[in-house]
Amino acid sequence: MKVDLNCDLGESFGVYTMGLDEEIIPLVSSVNVACGFHAGDPCVMQKTIALAKDSQIAIGAHPGYPDMLGFGRRNLDITPIEAKNYILYQLGALFAFAKAYSVQIQHIKPHGAMYNKAALDFNLAQAICEAVALFDERIIFLGLAHSVMLQAAEHMGLRIAHEVFADRAYNDDGTLVARREQGAVITDSQQAIQQILEILMQQKVTTITGKKIPIRADSICVHGDNHKALEFVKQIRKSLSQNHIHIVPMREIV
Amino acid sequence: MKVDLNCDLGESFGVYTMGLDEEIIPLVSSVNVACGFHAGDPCVMQKTIALAKDSQIAIGAHPGYPDMLGFGRRNLDITPIEAKNYILYQLGALFAFAKAYSVQIQHIKPHGAMYNKAALDFNLAQAICEAVALFDERIIFLGLAHSVMLQAAEHMGLRIAHEVFADRAYNDDGTLVARREQGAVITDSQQAIQQILEILMQQKVTTITGKKIPIRADSICVHGDNHKALEFVKQIRKSLSQNHIHIVPMREIV
Amino acid sequence: MKVDLNCDLGESFGVYTMGLDEEIIPLVSSVNVACGFHAGDPCVMQKTIALAKDSQIAIGAHPGYPDMLGFGRRNLDITPIEAKNYILYQLGALFAFAKAYSVQIQHIKPHGAMYNKAALDFNLAQAICEAVALFDERIIFLGLAHSVMLQAAEHMGLRIAHEVFADRAYNDDGTLVARREQGAVITDSQQAIQQILEILMQQKVTTITGKKIPIRADSICVHGDNHKALEFVKQIRKSLSQNHIHIVPMREIV
Amino acid sequence: MKVDLNCDLGESFGVYTMGLDEEIIPLVSSVNVACGFHAGDPCVMQKTIALAKDSQIAIGAHPGYPDMLGFGRRNLDITPIEAKNYILYQLGALFAFAKAYSVQIQHIKPHGAMYNKAALDFNLAQAICEAVALFDERIIFLGLAHSVMLQAAEHMGLRIAHEVFADRAYNDDGTLVARREQGAVITDSQQAIQQILEILMQQKVTTITGKKIPIRADSICVHGDNHKALEFVKQIRKSLSQNHIHIVPMREIV
Repeated sequence: MKVDLNCDLGESFGVYTMGLDEEIIPLVSSVNVACGFHAGDPCVMQKTIALAKDSQIAIGAHPGYPDMLGFGRRNLDITPIEAKNYILYQLGALFAFAKAYSVQIQHIKPHGAMYNKAALDFNLAQAICEAVALFDERIIFLGLAHSVMLQAAEHMGLRIAHEVFADRAYNDDGTLVARREQGAVITDSQQAIQQILEILMQQKVTTITGKKIPIRADSICVHGDNHKALEFVKQIRKSLSQNHIHIVPMREIV
Repeated sequence: MKVDLNCDLGESFGVYTMGLDEEIIPLVSSVNVACGFHAGDPCVMQKTIALAKDSQIAIGAHPGYPDMLGFGRRNLDITPIEAKNYILYQLGALFAFAKAYSVQIQHIKPHGAMYNKAALDFNLAQAICEAVALFDERIIFLGLAHSVMLQAAEHMGLRIAHEVFADRAYNDDGTLVARREQGAVITDSQQAIQQILEILMQQKVTTITGKKIPIRADSICVHGDNHKALEFVKQIRKSLSQNHIHIVPMREIV
Repeated sequence: MKVDLNCDLGESFGVYTMGLDEEIIPLVSSVNVACGFHAGDPCVMQKTIALAKDSQIAIGAHPGYPDMLGFGRRNLDITPIEAKNYILYQLGALFAFAKAYSVQIQHIKPHGAMYNKAALDFNLAQAICEAVALFDERIIFLGLAHSVMLQAAEHMGLRIAHEVFADRAYNDDGTLVARREQGAVITDSQQAIQQILEILMQQKVTTITGKKIPIRADSICVHGDNHKALEFVKQIRKSLSQNHIHIVPMREIV
Repeated sequence: MKVDLNCDLGESFGVYTMGLDEEIIPLVSSVNVACGFHAGDPCVMQKTIALAKDSQIAIGAHPGYPDMLGFGRRNLDITPIEAKNYILYQLGALFAFAKAYSVQIQHIKPHGAMYNKAALDFNLAQAICEAVALFDERIIFLGLAHSVMLQAAEHMGLRIAHEVFADRAYNDDGTLVARREQGAVITDSQQAIQQILEILMQQKVTTITGKKIPIRADSICVHGDNHKALEFVKQIRKSLSQNHIHIVPMREIV
């Protein structure tokens, strides 16, 4: 059994630092690199790609809305043509650094509010996928497991990777429980690891109502913001290892 | 005899329009496309590449300082590593649209204050050229004829194109007379055309002091901001034609 | 009878120009000045205030979402606390130029997507109004006639001005017909003027379904983007004059 | 004897945090609040003003170049009219939050590259001072002791405050030794405190060549970036107290 661990990185900006990039990179198998719209800048991108290459960890694009002030976490009503062009721009920008370091862009995962919107909005998802297909159809689309976003990607002929969350509760329809609702975030690390093991070993997840629904997991989303997050990643790695689940980049899975 | 005509385009931004792009594109042989730092945005870049492709005109990157408010015309003291990464980022962003439309990036020409600084500052010029060489060494470096910028590019192993100006007076050392000095800008269109013909047919230019100095011209910079500028381009085209000078993209010259 | 004519101005940005500000200012009685978030910049604001002062036309703040790329026309999901602080910031910025020229900020009118959202969303409207009340409770709140935005402003104790449109059709509930629907925009200038006269003289407007609903008009929104728009403003002025309706700044009405 | 302690604060931006604002504010007597151009944003400004008010610490404007990416630390060649308008804009923006919290803007201190440039460039300094005088001539201009910047401010009729540095070496002409030169930064905290005591008690500073030159100190610049910086501020406070030097806001000195 195999699974990918992905993490959002390269989110520093100018003198502002964010994330324990050096520590987390060796612990994951795929890094999602911010592309300068919601976070990141050309110098941060260069350093992030260099770090990932040093650790031989696969990289992907992590494009977002052009809203540095809101870190890409606020919905911005853009048209599909805007979405397509914003994605092309960010993909290309990341590609330049990948090329400079002779590494491939393995995948793409939309960021924040764009991710959440595209998980529900076929038109937005399709526009994003069109950009990916135009740029390089070998790029894997990483998105919320079983969501509209992945349907659009499959429809576009892209390879897809289903992403699951250790620390978020699921609704009966497979969507995530909204953060504003009670029980949305799983704060107990043992419970979070249990959820991941259930997903990986049974291909099922117990929803917030107690129901078991089928779910596929190609990649687990982890965080590298603080030392507690790092510690949790080490625990996940240990649990996966104890259960004979190998951590590999998503290109070896999908 | 052959020469290229290049023009800065794709300088609109959001709802703000600039330049008669549709009219000027068919009249030139190479367009320099703004990359979103000093002008342009993803949607403008897409439209500009589409227009250039429709007219089968060669495209190039026109990167600048990250200063939309100043249109890249104000010096910004960036380090060489910042310059290199800003160029990589912008080159990559443009590449995405070029790839989406299956066209090549023929050349690169720095914009505004970056162009002026790199014409004199080897370190800055070298940093820009390093980015170009890392990204794609086939890209031609278009810069002020005989300037430090082109020396840095040659040193880096890049193909270079010498750019000349119809409407700007030259100093005895081959640099442009600064705009704040009298006689810096040639407003008479006949005189401007005479300067171009002298440059092309004699490989010499008469400087502001009346001296004749050798100069090479691979590409002539023209403007597309207003109808007078368009008219002037038509006049240049006619004069070149009458003198049996062919207008071709710079890749057919250097 | 009296009415105010208001127009969005100061929307240029850096080298990008927008609007025939010099021509339109003397034709209106209140100008809404962009504050650097969706349009405008410090130099444009200075020039706009100087122009308004020269013509002795009242000025107001025209704050928007921080989205220059989208000209503030795209919804951005900001929290009420963000809205309040964004409004305070923009009000203060404009105030500095008003102070430098010894003029008062007469009014405030939210821009674009913020205007449309605040017309329906009491929480957003209230946050905007809190900022106004904190900054200077003498500032008049100009908003869509009879909308939620004005209810919030009244509730906050602000003076309000009801804004009406010559060139937009109304729904039976007093809201504007959405631009995407047929008949939303009145392109015939005679019909537009008829609508204004009906509103002003009968305090009623004929909706898109043919019904007559009551409406109050303190200020008419006009445009200064192009010569056709200017021409229309001249026609409105003439019609108002013929009907003995005086054009005065909104502070003389509400 | 009295002296002011000033510190740059409110430099966070969006989700990016910088500075131990809550800890440092009670330890200083004047805080310089970033105004959204090189750092800070409307929500950060609101929080910073609220914190300063809670601790009853005087606030000032800390305007910079419009270069968030470079944190205002890179020279940007702006014209005097641009400088004047950028300062007006930022002063006004801060004023809105000061007004909302019923506090006064005590002073202004340009940030980073603008500070360094204005210390040497009379035209830039004058443009900044013109903005201050237009906005509110009661605002104290805080700048490098005895520099051109303060001469321009005095010439404009503004009250001035001479700023000194504990951790920077001085040249014989009273300017700071450039950071790139050896010995520019004083890393030993005892030596830094000795420099401050020499300045305050003898009105002299020992320059990098060993010469003693006269210097006036109204305010000492301290930092609040990290715990070591905080510790140093506590040491300075203790040393000042032991030497019967009172820490008071600069308005009680100049």
